[in-house]
Amino acid sequence: MRHSLRLAGLTLALATGLTSLAHADDKDTIEYRQHIMKSLNAQSAILGQIVSGAIPEDNLVQHLDVLALLASTALKSFEPKVQGGEAKPEVWNDWGDFSKRMQEFATKTQEASKIAHTQGGQAALANMLDVLSCKSCHDVYRAEKKK
Amino acid sequence: MRHSLRLAGLTLALATGLTSLAHADDKDTIEYRQHIMKSLNAQSAILGQIVSGAIPEDNLVQHLDVLALLASTALKSFEPKVQGGEAKPEVWNDWGDFSKRMQEFATKTQEASKIAHTQGGQAALANMLDVLSCKSCHDVYRAEKKK
Repeated sequence: MRHSLRLAGLTLALATGLTSLAHADDKDTIEYRQHIMKSLNAQSAILGQIVSGAIPEDNLVQHLDVLALLASTALKSFEPKVQGGEAKPEVWNDWGDFSKRMQEFATKTQEASKIAHTQGGQAALANMLDVLSCKSCHDVYRAEKKK
Repeated sequence: MRHSLRLAGLTLALATGLTSLAHADDKDTIEYRQHIMKSLNAQSAILGQIVSGAIPEDNLVQHLDVLALLASTALKSFEPKVQGGEAKPEVWNDWGDFSKRMQEFATKTQEASKIAHTQGGQAALANMLDVLSCKSCHDVYRAEKKK
């Protein structure tokens, strides 16, 4: 974060009170959920690297905790009905199914985090990978843009 | 994660025992720290959005927790002396300074996470933004590639 951004943001916050600033314009709303999804993607890739033995598992429990925390934030970021980015209209047209799947994702990753702390990261991974699939939701709700 | 990757990884893990698979080749080592840095970048951007009032602060405490967890993983990902990506050679040539700064980053974000849980997210942000600057380390240790 740049110094100027931080100062501007803090001054704004002090002047108006952050809780009153709940209105996000469309660009910010889309960027927010993209930041979350990019983080989820990177953390999933790390878990894939650990599962395949490509990197050591030293940080496995921390990455499982991060995944669970990110999963807990994701649904909220889609609540504003703002189309754009890679989200298909089905996200809001089939909100019941979408939000159910997102909540399951949050629940399953939270369970994995708990298992990691009690039985170790490998036990958590084995339990989680049976039930989680990024692709099953992305196939329905994401229109991936080719980079 | 694709199903085939998961199965292949798990089978491999069961066959050999993951703890023996600590050797990462250079590409994996570089990708691992890039995944962490991308996640850190996205989470910093989210905090910037919250500070400036661009998005609601509903998930602020979770994002502070994620930042602290990611910061705790970052130093380990640079321990293998594998040059490449956007890391300058100074990372390993000045390891004493680099690792000290990384540890400070982990400590400060962990403190912020604790403050968030006791005094609230806004108190944590105000305390953290005074002392943290991504740029101060990136100027010395990162050679950013233009996208």
